Amino acid sequence: MASYLEQNQERFLSELMDWLRIPSVSADPKFHGDVLHAAEYLKARFEEVGLEKVELCPTAGNPIVYGEKIIDPALPTVLVYGHYDVQPADPYELWTSGPFEPVIKDGKIYARGACDDKGQVYMHVKAFEMMQQDGGVPCNVKVMIEGEEEIGSNNLAIFVRENKEKLKADVILISDTGILSNDQPSIEVGLRGLSYHEVQVTGPNRDLHSGLYGGAVANPINVLCKMIASLHDENNHITIPAFYDKVAVLSEEERAELNRVPHSDEEFKQSIGLPDTYGEAGYTTVERIGIRPTLDVNGIWGGYTGEGAKTVIASKAFAKISMRLVPHQTSEEITEIFQKHFESIAPSGVTVVVRPHHGGEPVVTPTDSVAYKAAADAMETTFGKRPIPTRGGGSIPIVAMFKTELGLDSVLLGFGLDSDAIHSPNEHYGVFNFLKGIETIPHFYRNYAAAAAK
Amino acid sequence: MASYLEQNQERFLSELMDWLRIPSVSADPKFHGDVLHAAEYLKARFEEVGLEKVELCPTAGNPIVYGEKIIDPALPTVLVYGHYDVQPADPYELWTSGPFEPVIKDGKIYARGACDDKGQVYMHVKAFEMMQQDGGVPCNVKVMIEGEEEIGSNNLAIFVRENKEKLKADVILISDTGILSNDQPSIEVGLRGLSYHEVQVTGPNRDLHSGLYGGAVANPINVLCKMIASLHDENNHITIPAFYDKVAVLSEEERAELNRVPHSDEEFKQSIGLPDTYGEAGYTTVERIGIRPTLDVNGIWGGYTGEGAKTVIASKAFAKISMRLVPHQTSEEITEIFQKHFESIAPSGVTVVVRPHHGGEPVVTPTDSVAYKAAADAMETTFGKRPIPTRGGGSIPIVAMFKTELGLDSVLLGFGLDSDAIHSPNEHYGVFNFLKGIETIPHFYRNYAAAAAK
Repeated sequence: MASYLEQNQERFLSELMDWLRIPSVSADPKFHGDVLHAAEYLKARFEEVGLEKVELCPTAGNPIVYGEKIIDPALPTVLVYGHYDVQPADPYELWTSGPFEPVIKDGKIYARGACDDKGQVYMHVKAFEMMQQDGGVPCNVKVMIEGEEEIGSNNLAIFVRENKEKLKADVILISDTGILSNDQPSIEVGLRGLSYHEVQVTGPNRDLHSGLYGGAVANPINVLCKMIASLHDENNHITIPAFYDKVAVLSEEERAELNRVPHSDEEFKQSIGLPDTYGEAGYTTVERIGIRPTLDVNGIWGGYTGEGAKTVIASKAFAKISMRLVPHQTSEEITEIFQKHFESIAPSGVTVVVRPHHGGEPVVTPTDSVAYKAAADAMETTFGKRPIPTRGGGSIPIVAMFKTELGLDSVLLGFGLDSDAIHSPNEHYGVFNFLKGIETIPHFYRNYAAAAAK
Repeated sequence: MASYLEQNQERFLSELMDWLRIPSVSADPKFHGDVLHAAEYLKARFEEVGLEKVELCPTAGNPIVYGEKIIDPALPTVLVYGHYDVQPADPYELWTSGPFEPVIKDGKIYARGACDDKGQVYMHVKAFEMMQQDGGVPCNVKVMIEGEEEIGSNNLAIFVRENKEKLKADVILISDTGILSNDQPSIEVGLRGLSYHEVQVTGPNRDLHSGLYGGAVANPINVLCKMIASLHDENNHITIPAFYDKVAVLSEEERAELNRVPHSDEEFKQSIGLPDTYGEAGYTTVERIGIRPTLDVNGIWGGYTGEGAKTVIASKAFAKISMRLVPHQTSEEITEIFQKHFESIAPSGVTVVVRPHHGGEPVVTPTDSVAYKAAADAMETTFGKRPIPTRGGGSIPIVAMFKTELGLDSVLLGFGLDSDAIHSPNEHYGVFNFLKGIETIPHFYRNYAAAAAK
C-alpha cells in the first residue's frame, strides 16, 4: 500500500495545491464565488475516487459537500467531517509567498488552508482512493465537508438537524487537529468552546481636536482600554462575575496525568519567540491551554492609524474579543454573562454596544471507545509509537453539536503541528504529515471495521 | 472700507476655495506635490496684493512662504505667521462633501483647512489687499507661512534660528485660534504644549491561533490596553511619576477669573452629543481644557479588524498617544518621562518600543502689551464687544519657539469656533468669521502703528 502512495504522492500533492489556489475565505463576502468553486472542485475529486451520490447540499450560506459509499447496511458507518473554507489571509504583507499560490519549501506546503483544513480533508480523499485500489473500504463511509467552519458552522447545525436519517452513522471521523510532534503522535480528546464578540464604544458624536477638547471628554479609546484591562486581575484570572462558576475542576490525578504530556516551556517560548510564558497564576502552560478558559482581544481599532501624527479624539473605538470555554461552560451562557458585564462597566459619558458573533461548545471525547482504539492502533502502526491523548486549546464547535444532534462521538484523527501557523501568515503543512495521514486513515477503517464486526 | 469688502467678498471666497481644493496634507508623503502647489498658490496671491520679495524659502521639508512690505525702517514691524498645510482628511466616508471639494452651506465653507489654517491665513492676504486700497499698511509687515505645522514645525524652528535678521520684528501676529462665539469675541492667551508618541507592543514572533495558544502567551493587545489603562487613576489623574511636578498651580483668584468665561456644561455636552462631561477630578471643564495637562490615545490598532471573526492572537499592537502640556512643563522633559515610564511598565513576555513624534511647548502670552491692546481694540470695533482673554487647550508650538528664538511675543488674533470641527470630518469656517477677520485685521495694524508711534 505504501508503494501505491509512493508512486502517486507527486500527483496527490499537485491535486491538493490546485485546490489550495482557490481562496475559499468564508468570512469575507468578496470571496463567495471562490468558496463555491472550492466546493465544486472537492465534489469532482470525491466522484473520481468512487464515492457515490456526491452532491452539493444547499444551505442558507455555503453548500455542504456530501457523498457516501454504502457497501453493506449491516456494517458500521463512519461519517467523515471536515471543512473546505479557510481563514482570511491578511496581513498579506507578512506572507513570504502568496497565501493562495501554494509552494513546497523544506518539505512543507505553504498556503492558507494547507493544514486547516483543506490539506487534512484531502488526506481523506486520497485515503479513499488508496482503499479502492486495495479491495475497497471495509465498512460504510459518508463524507460531509462544510464551507462555514471558520464563521461558526451555523448552517451546518441546521443541515444536521434536518438530515438525521441521511447522516445516520456509528462514529464521526475528523482530521482538523494536530499531533504533538512527528515523533510523538497524539489524539485530541478535549476541545475548548468559543464565545466571540465585537464591541463598540462611542463617545463624542464626531472626532474631536484633542487640544480643544482633551481632558474634558471621555476618550472612547482610553475607555475601551480601561474596560478591556479590567477583564483580568493581577493573577490573570478573568474578573467577569460567574465566569468560572461552571468550569470543571480536575482532580490532582487528572492534572498530573495531563501534565505528563511531553512539553517544554523552553521550547514553547523559543517556538514563538517569547522571553517568558504568561497566563493564569497557578496553572502550567499545558493546563492554561488545555483545561482553563481564556479571554483574548483578537483585534482592536479606532482613531488615527495612518502615517505621522493626528491630534484627534476619535468618536468610536472597536475591539473583537473572544473567550475560549472549557467543560462545563456553555457558549450561550458565557455570551450572555459577557455581554451584560461589558455593558455594565461602561463609564457614564460613553455608550457601549456588544455584538455577539458565533459560539461553540467545549467537549471531551471518550478514550475507551472502539473508534478511539482503532485510531490509536492505526497511528501506532504508521508512526511506530502509541499516540498520547491530549487536550488541545482549539475549538471544533461541531463536535459538541454532533453529540447533541446525532448522539455520535467524534474521533479527532488530526496530523497538523502547532508550528503550522494556522490562522497566521505563512500557514503550512508538512508533506510528511499529509502523506502520513493518507497512510494512517485506511488502517483506521480496517481496525474499526474488524473491531465492530466482533 | 466695509464697502470694498462687501463689493469683493464673492471673489475673496472663491479665491480661498480655489486654494482649499489643493490637498496640502503634510503628514502623508503622497500629497507632497499638492503641498508644494499650495505654497506656490499662496506666493502668487501675496505678490498680487503688493507684498515684496515674496519667495519660497527651501527647508529640509516643505518650503516656507516669505514676503514683506517695509514702508519705513523707523516704524515697527509685524511678523505674520500661519500655515498652509492641513491635517489628513480621513475618515473620508464621514464627510458629507469631499474634504477637498469646498462648498458653502448655511453660511459656512466646508473643506479640510477651511479654518485650520488656510482660511485664517487667507484673511491676512485679503486684509493686506484692503489696506493697499486704503492708503497702504501703516507699519512694516513680514509674512512667514509654513507647510509643516501639522507635523511639528521642525524645519521652521531651524529656519527661524538661521534667519533672525531677516525675521527681525516687534511682534508676531497669528490667526490660528478661535473666539468663544460670534457674539462674544475672545483672544487666546494660553496654549498647551504637546508630547506625541507612537508605541508598539510586540509579543509572539507571529500571529498565533487563539485556541492553540490562548491563555499561555502574553496577548500584545490585552497588554497594550492594560498599560494604557494604568496611565490614569480612578480620578483621571495621570499616574506617570513626576508628570505633574512642573505644572503651574493657579491661585484661587486666577481660577475664579478663568471660570468667569461664559461656558455651559449643558451646551458643551450637547454640542458633542455626550451625556456627561468627563475628566480630572476637582477641575471644571474650562480648567480641564485650559490649565491642566492631559493624556489621550489618538489611535490604536492591532490584530484582525476586518469583517467577521478571526480567532488570532496578534504579534504586535500599536497606539498613538499624546499629552497636552501646560506651563511650566517642557515637551522634552515629558517626552523623556513618558518614554521611560511606558517602557518600564511592560510586563515580561512582551517588548515595548516608544517612538516620540513631535512636541511643542506650552505658553502664556501677555495681556498688557501694546499689541494685545491693539488686537482687543480692533475686535471691540468690529464685534462691538470687548474680547475676553481665554486659555484654549490647543497647541501652537511655535509661539513658545518664537519667544525663545526671536524674543517676540505673539498675539493670537483668531476667528474660528470650537464647533468648526477642525481635525475632524466636515471641517468648516463661517463666512461671517472669514469676513470679520478680514475686516478686523486692518484695525489691528492701525491701532498698533498708532500706539507704537507714541
